[in-house]
Amino acid sequence: MHIVITGAAGFLGQRLVDQLVSAGQLAGSSLSRLTLIDQTEPPRPEAGDLATKTLALDISQPGALDDVLAEQPDVIYHFAAVVSSAAEGDLDLGMRVNFDATRDLLEGCRKHGLTRTRLIMASSVAAYGGDLPHTLDDMTALHPQNSYGAQKAMSELLINDYSRRGLVDGLVLRLPTIVIRPGRPNAAASSFASSILREPLKGEDAICPVSPDLELFIMSPATVVDALVHGAEVPGEALGAFRAFMLPGITVSVSEMLETLREVGGESALARVQFRPDPKIEAIVGSWPSRFSNLRASRLGFRSDKDFRDIVRAFMDENA
Amino acid sequence: MHIVITGAAGFLGQRLVDQLVSAGQLAGSSLSRLTLIDQTEPPRPEAGDLATKTLALDISQPGALDDVLAEQPDVIYHFAAVVSSAAEGDLDLGMRVNFDATRDLLEGCRKHGLTRTRLIMASSVAAYGGDLPHTLDDMTALHPQNSYGAQKAMSELLINDYSRRGLVDGLVLRLPTIVIRPGRPNAAASSFASSILREPLKGEDAICPVSPDLELFIMSPATVVDALVHGAEVPGEALGAFRAFMLPGITVSVSEMLETLREVGGESALARVQFRPDPKIEAIVGSWPSRFSNLRASRLGFRSDKDFRDIVRAFMDENA
Ligand SMILES: NC(=O)c1ccc[n+]([C@@H]2O[C@H](COP(=O)([O-])OP(=O)(O)OC[C@H]3O[C@@H](n4cnc5c(N)ncnc54)[C@H](O)[C@@H]3O)[C@@H](O)[C@H]2O)c1
Ligand SMILES: NC(=O)c1ccc[n+]([C@@H]2O[C@H](COP(=O)([O-])OP(=O)(O)OC[C@H]3O[C@@H](n4cnc5c(N)ncnc54)[C@H](O)[C@@H]3O)[C@@H](O)[C@H]2O)c1
Repeated sequence: MHIVITGAAGFLGQRLVDQLVSAGQLAGSSLSRLTLIDQTEPPRPEAGDLATKTLALDISQPGALDDVLAEQPDVIYHFAAVVSSAAEGDLDLGMRVNFDATRDLLEGCRKHGLTRTRLIMASSVAAYGGDLPHTLDDMTALHPQNSYGAQKAMSELLINDYSRRGLVDGLVLRLPTIVIRPGRPNAAASSFASSILREPLKGEDAICPVSPDLELFIMSPATVVDALVHGAEVPGEALGAFRAFMLPGITVSVSEMLETLREVGGESALARVQFRPDPKIEAIVGSWPSRFSNLRASRLGFRSDKDFRDIVRAFMDENA
Repeated sequence: MHIVITGAAGFLGQRLVDQLVSAGQLAGSSLSRLTLIDQTEPPRPEAGDLATKTLALDISQPGALDDVLAEQPDVIYHFAAVVSSAAEGDLDLGMRVNFDATRDLLEGCRKHGLTRTRLIMASSVAAYGGDLPHTLDDMTALHPQNSYGAQKAMSELLINDYSRRGLVDGLVLRLPTIVIRPGRPNAAASSFASSILREPLKGEDAICPVSPDLELFIMSPATVVDALVHGAEVPGEALGAFRAFMLPGITVSVSEMLETLREVGGESALARVQFRPDPKIEAIVGSWPSRFSNLRASRLGFRSDKDFRDIVRAFMDENA
């Protein structure tokens, strides 16, 4: 089994590489080749016998992936993307990387006859927006309020159409907000959601810019990686009439997150979180949906985290 | 007021031109210029003082509209499209005309600073699909099951995003099935819906390929044209978070249509309709949604036809 990953040097790409290399198989077939692509050459994993290629490619250059696709990969994970704030700041860049490159990848699959190749793209909860109902489901419209979300939604439609036409075997997973991300706070509006747990658990201070009532729809990094692996296992016939859907996150409020922090890390950890309201962040994150019901993904075997305490414990184990 | 129409030689384009020329105004401003564009030069209307330009342009050629947009039109009706069967038959052609040309038009608006130009595109009920609920509303997702619908849905997202960014003042109206179209039966799957009334009312035979229970969501040509005119009147601020929505059609079953035919045209007219089931047509048309409730368009002043009998009477008056 030959697996290609675009954006392989990124957060999810690196976690998935670790998982694939340690499992040595995907969807019941043993791995033979791994092709890792990013703007700058991704780190080469310690992968024993596995034939591993690491390539520095700008996927927004038309045909950039042509040689890779000519090798008839079995599974393609398409992660390379310009994230929301960058796509909002530069419409042309976002269109080129988030949409045109997806289209170019689909055209490459068509050209090389990759009708049975499972192409898995990561979309986002940020594709939802506008006047949303209290609880969403698989039939809730995407009315994105940011260019990143619009570009992801357009890519979803295109992957679905190419799959419907039998040109590729596509699948798009809309990811919840990922918590707890390792590393440092970053410019993402949702950065605090990891920060208010990660920093106190390391004995550092953290700022919470939103009210305790705010709810988020979240998934742990390990569960996202499980979903990405499962995405290669689900048969195309089971995917139904539209090949893009929301993954089953769990709904947690900031106050529930902090209560868990207190349970796991004690009063001293909780005391490290300072509320300092930032209306801009509250507005952005508050506009993301946090409640979904009856998701198709669950019936297709994509699992959610059990509860928030498990997420925190897993983080502590990993970072112990 | 300078109005541009792409696809102006088509069915809706021609009806809208007639309406605009006879009204002499749009959205409270008197018409000064009309630029009509199609693949082959559209007919030049009898338009008195109105400065009328008719252009043969292939809008799928990048920059084809550049000179026209440089003239800073106030309203653009974007109708040029490859219809569903053709877009299904030729993916590249559909993408080029239905999507790339829309994107190129948006880029032209951006380049020429047409931030206040109202751009109105016609989308379609064919953009809906998949496992639809019994009754749809404005928040029902677009899961198109044909390339035409996918290309329209992608164009909707792009027009919304360019509008949200203030680059143009866009609006997309999803049209119901238009009944009664004048002319001859054509290759459209919905052709029978006009045919089973139009032909008998002219004393000719017609074939009904679907069961009498089948329901359609329809709008008369006159009401569609009213909606296109109203689309130039609705203020941008009223359009809310997503600038694409379904127009308020009415739901009628084939048996209701035929009952009206009997009332208006008598038993002899009804006797001209022969049922000859065609499972392929039943499958296509039966997959289109026919029931919508609580549509935003109604609250924005877009009106629906009163009832099916009015539609038939209006057709008879027009064709008397
Ligand atoms: N992490 C999340 O919370 C989250 C949530 C929703 C969706 N997603 C999506 O999941 C995917 C992966 O997310 P991530 O958190 O790993 O992001 P990331 O930013 O860590 O990784 C993205 C990678 O794409 C690469 N890239 C960008 N432009 C490129 C180009 N032109 N050519 C080649 N490579 C390019 C970047 O260098 C980066 O390594 C993205 O598509 C993202 O939109 C992530
Ligand atoms: N009539 C309907 O029932 C209906 C329903 C839903 C949506 N629509 C949409 O409404 C719009 C108008 O529909 P219509 O019934 O008038 O269609 P039509 O086919 O009569 O008119 C479309 C026109 O576009 C022109 N065109 C196609 N490609 C072109 C190109 N590359 N450059 C320039 N012109 C080009 C054609 O020559 C044609 O005159 C279309 O966008 C259609 O998708 C129509």
